[in-house]
Amino acid sequence: MGNTIKLAVIPGDGIGKEVVAEGLKVMDAALAGSGITIDKTEFNLGAARYRETGEILPEAELDSIKNHDVILLGAVGDPAVPSGVLERGLLLKLRFSLDHYVNLRPAHYYRGVPTPLANPGEIDFVVVREGTEGLYCGNGGAIRVGTDQEIATEVSVNTAFGIERVVRFAFAQAAKRRQHVTLVHKHNVLVHAGHLWRRTVERVAEEYPEVTWDYAHVDAATIYLVQDPARFDVIVTDNLFGDILTDEAGAITGGIGLAASGNINPDRTFPSMFEPVHGSAPDIAGKGIADPTATISSVAMLLENEGAGQQADNIRAAIAADMEERALAAEQGQPLQRSTSQIGDAIAARL
Amino acid sequence: MGNTIKLAVIPGDGIGKEVVAEGLKVMDAALAGSGITIDKTEFNLGAARYRETGEILPEAELDSIKNHDVILLGAVGDPAVPSGVLERGLLLKLRFSLDHYVNLRPAHYYRGVPTPLANPGEIDFVVVREGTEGLYCGNGGAIRVGTDQEIATEVSVNTAFGIERVVRFAFAQAAKRRQHVTLVHKHNVLVHAGHLWRRTVERVAEEYPEVTWDYAHVDAATIYLVQDPARFDVIVTDNLFGDILTDEAGAITGGIGLAASGNINPDRTFPSMFEPVHGSAPDIAGKGIADPTATISSVAMLLENEGAGQQADNIRAAIAADMEERALAAEQGQPLQRSTSQIGDAIAARL
Ligand SMILES: CC(C)[C@H](C(=O)O)[C@@H](O)C(=O)O
Ligand SMILES: CC(C)[C@H](C(=O)O)[C@@H](O)C(=O)O
Repeated sequence: MGNTIKLAVIPGDGIGKEVVAEGLKVMDAALAGSGITIDKTEFNLGAARYRETGEILPEAELDSIKNHDVILLGAVGDPAVPSGVLERGLLLKLRFSLDHYVNLRPAHYYRGVPTPLANPGEIDFVVVREGTEGLYCGNGGAIRVGTDQEIATEVSVNTAFGIERVVRFAFAQAAKRRQHVTLVHKHNVLVHAGHLWRRTVERVAEEYPEVTWDYAHVDAATIYLVQDPARFDVIVTDNLFGDILTDEAGAITGGIGLAASGNINPDRTFPSMFEPVHGSAPDIAGKGIADPTATISSVAMLLENEGAGQQADNIRAAIAADMEERALAAEQGQPLQRSTSQIGDAIAARL
Repeated sequence: MGNTIKLAVIPGDGIGKEVVAEGLKVMDAALAGSGITIDKTEFNLGAARYRETGEILPEAELDSIKNHDVILLGAVGDPAVPSGVLERGLLLKLRFSLDHYVNLRPAHYYRGVPTPLANPGEIDFVVVREGTEGLYCGNGGAIRVGTDQEIATEVSVNTAFGIERVVRFAFAQAAKRRQHVTLVHKHNVLVHAGHLWRRTVERVAEEYPEVTWDYAHVDAATIYLVQDPARFDVIVTDNLFGDILTDEAGAITGGIGLAASGNINPDRTFPSMFEPVHGSAPDIAGKGIADPTATISSVAMLLENEGAGQQADNIRAAIAADMEERALAAEQGQPLQRSTSQIGDAIAARL
């Protein structure tokens, strides 16, 4: 880390813009007096840009983004853009081009947060989702489209190289946490990919004698997430299973309005990208009621990734204190009613 | 339906045998005096057979199974058999060979059943899971196995033919229920398969003007299942997403010990197969403590499929009464402690 972090900001669409503004506000507050400065470039990418210009992610902009240390993204998409266009053309294009092979998604339950679970318990795990392979690689196609003989395929590509590097990351995380890894897959059906994952975990596990590991089929994992989520420390899984499990993890910890994520390139060959797990939520956009906490949490992950661990910890402490304030208010029968920017202000004020 | 149902029984392994015994007990009780008789053939298939003889599903036995009206299966598998061998070689072999293109999995919450949800609400939906395509078709492979250049692929194959027939089944179900279908897929990433599913649903929906439909990405669906499961009436989805969602659905309705399923060939070109969603549960096998309710529910589905709708309804009513008895006992602080066969006896006694 230099004293300046070159930050690319992609606010995106809908509530993306609103929550990113709060994320940046808290970032500034956290860095005040630290000697670390932020050199921001904003990129106008997403549904609005696409609808105006037809452009999704021009090469020149991708090159310019690469020329930054790190990226903060809000959310992209709106219902007028056909499904898949921005997801594949922008979001996944960034994750794949920037080799974000770790998609890191913490799940933490804060006391007092409304949750659908009767007894959430001590939920505190991270999902290490593979980010550059599997069914997300875009290998697939269709023939005889629109006829009654149409055939569409989707190909999941899984490599020893790609799996090993993300599994290593997961074990390294576990070594710093509660020393347990759970591999989630479906190796009783997806035998080729599944057994490659299993063998890779077995091998990497030997290098981490202090870390225990177990295995769950993805279907069983969705059960454990509601019945006993406290059992998990680090979950490592493929791109699609990780997508599914992290939304469910968001739901049990009180909604994806709180869930942060990092699309990380641990080798720093390209900038990593941090974003809330939620989408652009067109239904509530512009109303100033989106909870920016997921983005603020993502900012903490971003700063940690850029070497500002102390400032990241400070933001996390501020979020925890804010969550505690919410819990107390709810207990007293007066749940806090705050706008997006009031939540940002409240967290920034604690820094 | 003739007056005799030719039933193939595959008890399988572990608790499979125990719960199937209760399923048959209740079937006999339900049919007593109905004029319908059962002509049973038991097939010794599963982990035990495989370990003794190396045989999984010899062609002659598959042929003989085809020569029945319908199949009742318990559960197969034990930890000593490598993952995938019995799943692909027996369970999926049956589903695919017998063209079980509908995997029907009802989710119903009975009052008083312990559930991890704080407010389960009125959960009553069915998942119509496609059973003969998608990632389950076994199209995949690996090269350079065991080296650091290994590549493993899994191919999801989706056809207009295969999707249309299962979507039709789903809309026909919805027409008899609360008139709503939810398509679950991930068409923003799996654009080829996903858009084929979406277009098919759009087209079939036109034939059912009274049935409304909506769409959820699979990740969002896992959220709805814990936050607001009452929203669902009929979910239609592909093989893998159906596998995942039905386990989660089992969890929210009180555990997959209660979840029934039918692998249905609606055209009756081959026998359909009914089975509990749970597995052989080696950890509790032989203890007589498995809950046979999922299998008994599966027997009700089986009888309905074979034209014995009245007897199926009677079994469902007996299960509901038994669940009510459990709820009352639990409310009075004296939860029932019953063995597998005591539960079977109690339900049979109500018929
Ligand atoms: C929008 C979509 C492409 C994305 C994904 O599937 O990865 C989202 O669901 C997520 O989890 O970040
Ligand atoms: C055992 C396995 C092959 C099977 C499946 O994945 O379909 C099971 O999980 C199920 O849901 O019936």
